[in-house]
Amino acid sequence: MTLTKRLAAEFLGTLWLVLGGCGSAVLAANFGGDGNPLGIGLLGVSLAFGLTVLTGAFAFGHISGGHFNPAVSLGLWAGGRFPASDLLPYILVQVAGAIVAGFLLLQIAKGGGGFAIDPSAPGAFASNGYGVRSPGGYTLAAAFITEVLLTAFFLVVIMGATHGRAPAGFAPIAIGLALTLIHLISIPVTNTSVNPARSTGVALFAGAGAMGQLWLFWVAPLVGGALGGITYAWLRPANE
Amino acid sequence: MTLTKRLAAEFLGTLWLVLGGCGSAVLAANFGGDGNPLGIGLLGVSLAFGLTVLTGAFAFGHISGGHFNPAVSLGLWAGGRFPASDLLPYILVQVAGAIVAGFLLLQIAKGGGGFAIDPSAPGAFASNGYGVRSPGGYTLAAAFITEVLLTAFFLVVIMGATHGRAPAGFAPIAIGLALTLIHLISIPVTNTSVNPARSTGVALFAGAGAMGQLWLFWVAPLVGGALGGITYAWLRPANE
Amino acid sequence: MTLTKRLAAEFLGTLWLVLGGCGSAVLAANFGGDGNPLGIGLLGVSLAFGLTVLTGAFAFGHISGGHFNPAVSLGLWAGGRFPASDLLPYILVQVAGAIVAGFLLLQIAKGGGGFAIDPSAPGAFASNGYGVRSPGGYTLAAAFITEVLLTAFFLVVIMGATHGRAPAGFAPIAIGLALTLIHLISIPVTNTSVNPARSTGVALFAGAGAMGQLWLFWVAPLVGGALGGITYAWLRPANE
Amino acid sequence: MTLTKRLAAEFLGTLWLVLGGCGSAVLAANFGGDGNPLGIGLLGVSLAFGLTVLTGAFAFGHISGGHFNPAVSLGLWAGGRFPASDLLPYILVQVAGAIVAGFLLLQIAKGGGGFAIDPSAPGAFASNGYGVRSPGGYTLAAAFITEVLLTAFFLVVIMGATHGRAPAGFAPIAIGLALTLIHLISIPVTNTSVNPARSTGVALFAGAGAMGQLWLFWVAPLVGGALGGITYAWLRPANE
Repeated sequence: MTLTKRLAAEFLGTLWLVLGGCGSAVLAANFGGDGNPLGIGLLGVSLAFGLTVLTGAFAFGHISGGHFNPAVSLGLWAGGRFPASDLLPYILVQVAGAIVAGFLLLQIAKGGGGFAIDPSAPGAFASNGYGVRSPGGYTLAAAFITEVLLTAFFLVVIMGATHGRAPAGFAPIAIGLALTLIHLISIPVTNTSVNPARSTGVALFAGAGAMGQLWLFWVAPLVGGALGGITYAWLRPANE
Repeated sequence: MTLTKRLAAEFLGTLWLVLGGCGSAVLAANFGGDGNPLGIGLLGVSLAFGLTVLTGAFAFGHISGGHFNPAVSLGLWAGGRFPASDLLPYILVQVAGAIVAGFLLLQIAKGGGGFAIDPSAPGAFASNGYGVRSPGGYTLAAAFITEVLLTAFFLVVIMGATHGRAPAGFAPIAIGLALTLIHLISIPVTNTSVNPARSTGVALFAGAGAMGQLWLFWVAPLVGGALGGITYAWLRPANE
Repeated sequence: MTLTKRLAAEFLGTLWLVLGGCGSAVLAANFGGDGNPLGIGLLGVSLAFGLTVLTGAFAFGHISGGHFNPAVSLGLWAGGRFPASDLLPYILVQVAGAIVAGFLLLQIAKGGGGFAIDPSAPGAFASNGYGVRSPGGYTLAAAFITEVLLTAFFLVVIMGATHGRAPAGFAPIAIGLALTLIHLISIPVTNTSVNPARSTGVALFAGAGAMGQLWLFWVAPLVGGALGGITYAWLRPANE
Repeated sequence: MTLTKRLAAEFLGTLWLVLGGCGSAVLAANFGGDGNPLGIGLLGVSLAFGLTVLTGAFAFGHISGGHFNPAVSLGLWAGGRFPASDLLPYILVQVAGAIVAGFLLLQIAKGGGGFAIDPSAPGAFASNGYGVRSPGGYTLAAAFITEVLLTAFFLVVIMGATHGRAPAGFAPIAIGLALTLIHLISIPVTNTSVNPARSTGVALFAGAGAMGQLWLFWVAPLVGGALGGITYAWLRPANE
């Protein structure tokens, strides 16, 4: 594949991730208002995020590898599975796709009855946060540990499920459902990032508070991703 | 396979899609009444729609391709994967299957205590709608964008997961769960169509209001489907 | 495999189906009491039933075929995929496994605080029912149509997903999730049977009311199963 | 693979199991407070536990076999699929991984608003229990039967899905979703163990009450695991 088409696949895949994951959170999580069990809740949002990656990886994986996430691209490079030369272009189009998704989602959401983003609310427009912006009021330290740890394990699953010794073809299922699991654990802590592009794509539209905390959702996932990639490369090198 | 048997498979598969997806919405989404968490809610309905396609594609995919949806048939034709000569018969039996499903579902629903269709209610008898008929009160414009965008991505996933380079055999999982994801995002907006046959099959029984808005759930999914098919065909042609 | 071991597999698999499906309904569906969203609800029960078959079919499918259900055995016979000589022994051990499961579940349930079976309640001890015993108050006619229709489609999915032209290995996923889908639609109608053994295994412990309606959950699933088997055999014969 | 790397994989996999399963229970099950349907509830926790094993088995299965559970290691040995010489080291690192996970989870949880472990509460810090410590107030006898029975079936599914005659590659899906099913049934009874390492990893931080009941969550799963392994080995020996 040409680099252009690989980048187009990453752009579309990340757009899909943010449109689907953040879209389900903004539009459907709390449907019917507080306390209404019709809404899909944190479980539905967790499933939605995972399914964006599961479906995107089946659709685009054979084109671009199906990263849709700067922390994944960096982690795969750290683990020896991705060339340094492609890192920057991949990350740029991932962020671009996420921003376009955020923009599209905003247009849809604005068409709903009484929609408004409250920039001071934790998780506003599906943004990530810590401290007063954490959905469950978790500290910066807890948020940082959580994002590093979960991104590291995300990369371990990705490296393991795509290893030549793993059963062929199943990786999109393993990786997508790993992202579902990660959300099941950590939406209350940080609204779950493990993906700097996803965080950027909605923070841009969620107000200054969200933008002011965006640094953590670049630093922690990138650190975690690299850690995970290195760990797995030690555990089972690609040629072993 | 003969065309007759392929059409029979599309008829049965679309019947299954509407019976299962709309059936779960009508019979079980709100079980026990407002606020009762025993009901399956929007998450359960989303899962049900996806599972009709997942199971139907495993059962009928090797007979008819497993479209069950005029927008899918059109999108696959636009993407160069389906012959024009089969388009009209496929679409006709899909609509017929959907209508039979709507009829059967109505017979079952009428057997329940106190069942009645309120033709003025948004989402009545699982019908799709915008404006005053949108479950969350979304405008026509928001509804149109949503249906175009999600059907386009649906086709992208379908084209990608059934491409010769994708892992063999997994397409029904990817495609079924893509439909689940699409519902997790957009039930509040339009009650989620992305499928003109599904919309027609229940609108016929849901009153004049639903019928009056049915045009959008033909136009938007067909436009989106074609767009998705063309996009993926550019991204990765079938022979590449 | 010897017939003894095949029958042992059917016994254990049906035991697992009833223990898991009815167990989740009795022990966890309504956990915390009415209105408590901690309970797994109808969605959780639907998932549990499907997962008993998904997991059982992976574990026992290569031993006995993984029917766990008289309607499945009969339907496969009607569709030309199962020998008549094995029908009766299969059905007998399926019913035996279901009854043992009902007995074990009762011992566990009795160990919980304040457990009691109210024999007049619809769905008591996960029993199936119609009319006054239907969870949603559905008539006998609605119950009958529902059970015939859904069992027929269940057999269609089973015959299709295990056909030689279907992707190999995926059948347990398709079949298990078909059972989940069937429950997502029809728990409100009949508490969902589509399986005479499952109905018998709990009705025996649920009082005279449940026993008095048990006939329908033999007749309707067997009729539906045969119908589905014959339909699919016409659609795509095994050797085609 | 060297034993060191196999043990590292078991350590990480069990850490992941406890971090994800118990983490989702502690952080997200009851999000928003009692009665709030946003929380993931017992269904979300069940899914999370299953997905830790599904994803861990895809990532680590080709390194260590992917046990993550002393009852699984013992059961596989009892069923003739695992060498006695590896039993003790496997169990030791599984317990170590679980304890590290419990410690990490505690650090995250303590960062949340108003977090405190009430050592007298059933299920405190995701601990297992019976009698007054059972979430649903189930007796010791009911708890014991439940843990033995469900661990036995867990091993039957594991042995069956990894048998040479089962479809290749699907075992992580079957096994992970079996654990989800087991939780859907039995969280109300014992908070679900079927895994002595998981029980130990959180009991250590949950107070004397949880520690005093820990013996049952070693004895019952080990008995059940051995029973399941022996049963399946009789049903279908590895070489048959």
